[in-house]
Amino acid sequence: MKLTQLLAPTLREDPSEAEVISHKLMLRAGMIRKLSAGVYTLMPLGFRVIQKVEQIVREEMNKAGAQELLLPALLPAELWHETGRWDIYGKELMKIKDRHDREFCLGPTHEEVITDLVRNEVRSYRQLPLNLYQIQTKFRDEIRPRFGLMRGREFIMKDAYSFDRDDAGLEATYRKMEKAYRNIFTRCGLKFKMVEADPGPIGGGFSQEFMVIADTGEDEIMHCDKCDYAASHEMVRVKEGKREKVKGKREDTPKIEKVKTPNVKTIEELEKFLKVDPKRMIKTLIHNVGGEAVAVLIRGDRALNESKLKKVLKREDVVLAEPEFIQKVTGAPVGFSGPVGLKNVRIIADHEVAEIDDGVSGANEKDFHLMHIQYGRDFKADVVDALRLAEAGDPCTVCEGGKLIMNRGIEVGHIFKLGTKYSAKMRANFLDEDGKEKPCIMGCYGIGIGRTAAAAIEQSSDKDGIIWPIPIAPFSVVVVPVNVSESVQKDTAVSIYEKLLALGIDVLYDDRDERVGVRLKDIDLIGIPIKVIIGPKGLAEKKAEIKLRSSGETTMVALDEVEEKIKELLG
Amino acid sequence: MKLTQLLAPTLREDPSEAEVISHKLMLRAGMIRKLSAGVYTLMPLGFRVIQKVEQIVREEMNKAGAQELLLPALLPAELWHETGRWDIYGKELMKIKDRHDREFCLGPTHEEVITDLVRNEVRSYRQLPLNLYQIQTKFRDEIRPRFGLMRGREFIMKDAYSFDRDDAGLEATYRKMEKAYRNIFTRCGLKFKMVEADPGPIGGGFSQEFMVIADTGEDEIMHCDKCDYAASHEMVRVKEGKREKVKGKREDTPKIEKVKTPNVKTIEELEKFLKVDPKRMIKTLIHNVGGEAVAVLIRGDRALNESKLKKVLKREDVVLAEPEFIQKVTGAPVGFSGPVGLKNVRIIADHEVAEIDDGVSGANEKDFHLMHIQYGRDFKADVVDALRLAEAGDPCTVCEGGKLIMNRGIEVGHIFKLGTKYSAKMRANFLDEDGKEKPCIMGCYGIGIGRTAAAAIEQSSDKDGIIWPIPIAPFSVVVVPVNVSESVQKDTAVSIYEKLLALGIDVLYDDRDERVGVRLKDIDLIGIPIKVIIGPKGLAEKKAEIKLRSSGETTMVALDEVEEKIKELLG
Repeated sequence: MKLTQLLAPTLREDPSEAEVISHKLMLRAGMIRKLSAGVYTLMPLGFRVIQKVEQIVREEMNKAGAQELLLPALLPAELWHETGRWDIYGKELMKIKDRHDREFCLGPTHEEVITDLVRNEVRSYRQLPLNLYQIQTKFRDEIRPRFGLMRGREFIMKDAYSFDRDDAGLEATYRKMEKAYRNIFTRCGLKFKMVEADPGPIGGGFSQEFMVIADTGEDEIMHCDKCDYAASHEMVRVKEGKREKVKGKREDTPKIEKVKTPNVKTIEELEKFLKVDPKRMIKTLIHNVGGEAVAVLIRGDRALNESKLKKVLKREDVVLAEPEFIQKVTGAPVGFSGPVGLKNVRIIADHEVAEIDDGVSGANEKDFHLMHIQYGRDFKADVVDALRLAEAGDPCTVCEGGKLIMNRGIEVGHIFKLGTKYSAKMRANFLDEDGKEKPCIMGCYGIGIGRTAAAAIEQSSDKDGIIWPIPIAPFSVVVVPVNVSESVQKDTAVSIYEKLLALGIDVLYDDRDERVGVRLKDIDLIGIPIKVIIGPKGLAEKKAEIKLRSSGETTMVALDEVEEKIKELLG
Repeated sequence: MKLTQLLAPTLREDPSEAEVISHKLMLRAGMIRKLSAGVYTLMPLGFRVIQKVEQIVREEMNKAGAQELLLPALLPAELWHETGRWDIYGKELMKIKDRHDREFCLGPTHEEVITDLVRNEVRSYRQLPLNLYQIQTKFRDEIRPRFGLMRGREFIMKDAYSFDRDDAGLEATYRKMEKAYRNIFTRCGLKFKMVEADPGPIGGGFSQEFMVIADTGEDEIMHCDKCDYAASHEMVRVKEGKREKVKGKREDTPKIEKVKTPNVKTIEELEKFLKVDPKRMIKTLIHNVGGEAVAVLIRGDRALNESKLKKVLKREDVVLAEPEFIQKVTGAPVGFSGPVGLKNVRIIADHEVAEIDDGVSGANEKDFHLMHIQYGRDFKADVVDALRLAEAGDPCTVCEGGKLIMNRGIEVGHIFKLGTKYSAKMRANFLDEDGKEKPCIMGCYGIGIGRTAAAAIEQSSDKDGIIWPIPIAPFSVVVVPVNVSESVQKDTAVSIYEKLLALGIDVLYDDRDERVGVRLKDIDLIGIPIKVIIGPKGLAEKKAEIKLRSSGETTMVALDEVEEKIKELLG
């Protein structure tokens, strides 16, 4: 394609609406334009990237035995009522009525629809396993759409749903999908980790996320420096067994002492005021669990893992209590809660809290704290469990001697073992070989297509612009005559362009009549991996300059060897 | 792909919900399933057809210099207010509010959005011409969704929008699109006509439709039996100039005579009762034009062309009047209107009415008609113009001696010269070479992707099922061992299947363990163009049977020549 015919309006300045690098660069390179919050136009260059990612996804999904279809976006409310998600999905579900006042939603995910299809079409175990996927525009009315294609309200997703006879079948399908996902993200040129994850509102028992490692990622992930273990920050397992004993200053804990601590509320303020190590403080977090007060105790230097707390309590409706609720429960404002003397409140403590000698906590009285408190002597917990968030440097729970490292990541894929969560509710049964009716065992598997493209940019860019991995670059090669009005340069460039085109290479011809510096700036901003530059110096020696966007490496190549060199570079 | 792995649930019986052949066969062949009225799942086989049509469209659009992008489906109301279409588009426009109560619609067409994009990104004539297209799911809340993919509420469309500097530019782009469309429908294996059409609610001055000729088509089209002229029934031009003179029974028209015609209201009843040729009757159709009464006169044997009437009146709000309105205007119920003595009513007559001698019409009195009425003597029209619908056998207005033929057709494409309808309203201007700001001159170009697939079936099927044109068949070839448990047959079939696969041919392997008759029935229903059948008789001579779906033609081909033969058949 000729660059003058391409609608690729580049911007010199960073747009003020963009916070992260991929969003900035996609706007600046003319790849996307915002229509409204979280709703973007994919411009020709951006659409080419999306198409390339889609094609890789398609090839690997087909290779893994999945079949492509296309489910509707307009989904009748009745199906969502069957699973109860019409009401519990929340405001992200965009609801609409048709001219006859019938209710629909715009599909944010398609478990209900595919399960309905399968219950209508599948009768026998002979029709299983089935793995059905689609690449489709989804709608989620995010409360805070942001970061361009990273978190939109309208976005393209690949979603697959598998149906198996039994758990062993699901396990096999799940592993095939894991492999397909590894192939997909590897082919897209991404550095990623597969991590254990929280299934969230999709549900099911077990799920894993594919995380592209990037400092600007929204998620925290941890992985071992020795073995393959990796999990999202909330899901990472904390080593049980021997725990650090925190000693007080004296051998025996003295009697409790109430000290005045005016306006001292946070751990940091308390450390300064009382000169006590935060390891000896007992953070007391009052939670509201469906109206019931629960005090959660955690060491002062640790953070609570809300996800684990929910699992310990076996409840989803667990939130940090509001100030009024805390005042009512403890008799004191926020910042002065403590376990000693708390009445009619369930107490849940992290293991480490029981190991603190001579501790400090709030006195349940405004502007007072208690010193020298001791687990067992002055207070007890109803439950003691692992509640803290893992930290960088924690020992790995899988291998011996490994230590956990913390990274930020961008979730580009998520695979779930759903089991019978949907098939049981919607009665998607099949007749098994033994003559019994059984619910299908389901899995589901998602990839954010636009997010994958954006993640590639988060992982690879420089001050000049995007550095695309070749397989998902909008064009692989650009041919640039230094001066398009110079006929020898132009003719040579056009001839090389046409030869590359004939080879089926994705090549762009820069026919713009502008200063070459300005043109190369645009091209580097767009991030085209290989430039073939035709200038007077090279031409004098019958050579072209081939320059790589990734390394900046430059080679002079004889004109009649350009095609071979490009083929070699493209692999 | 192996047939046992494909989700293609075929049905033996015609589903009761389907009226037309394409709808029936797509359901029976397991290509589509209904989710709700006008909302369909594209099953794996159906999706493959759609993908093939899309690919042909993409290649031809790119070849014609258009660029693909993807606009959002969620469109903010503000843009639609700018053109006024938010209110006038009617109930087909699906409206939705987000969590912040902001109004959006689901895009039924994208003139507003693309014009907004271009006004933001295009400044100079140097950036023109531009032709931008997308292949996208559209939403229209049709009052009567029907015929499967033919008229859905959610459907896939290719829509392109062009922006030129001037009318000559638009003309050139429009002709490129005409050529691209001819290529597309030809490559899809369709018999079609390009006809002059009514631009309808998209607007602009001129448009043409691409009609696939099929008896079950929703539209009537007319074309000349001698030259290329073709138009939709409403748009076809009726020959001006010399018109047929309708003589009465006597040389001079006698005086008007009022006759009692109890309950005689229609042309047919009148013909029987009065024994008068309908050519001598003057049908008087009272219209309500925004509250004003207009009487439209047309010969008894003719039909009124509502579209022409609107053009003559230069109004869109023209409807046949309700009985109460007619009673008020004429003093008589429906069926007894006539032009004689009508007061305060504008009269618009078709040319032919002025040529009737000794005519008959209603008397504007219940149960009475007038005989012997004469144009000029007894009544006059305010306007005389061409108002009748063309009929089969009418002379062609373009060539000498040609006669019009009537066909039914399915609209698969529509191209429009929009001019400045959108660019002027939305101020999509560019700075021209002469330093003046001018509005872009626009065109738009649509193709119904699903409808094209359905039209192919309407055009080509038999009692056994679909007969796909090869380029859009879900698979080109199927390899069928007569008995899959027979290892030589199976191994031979698998070997041929794998060789064809390696050649990049779209081939299916029928590995079902069922009676071959049942399997071939399914395959013919699905409509796969080429069958390679491996049976014991052929194998004895080291031959395979190659059978064509279209002609039923069978050839025995040596096993080692099967690939060559298939390549030859696929062209």
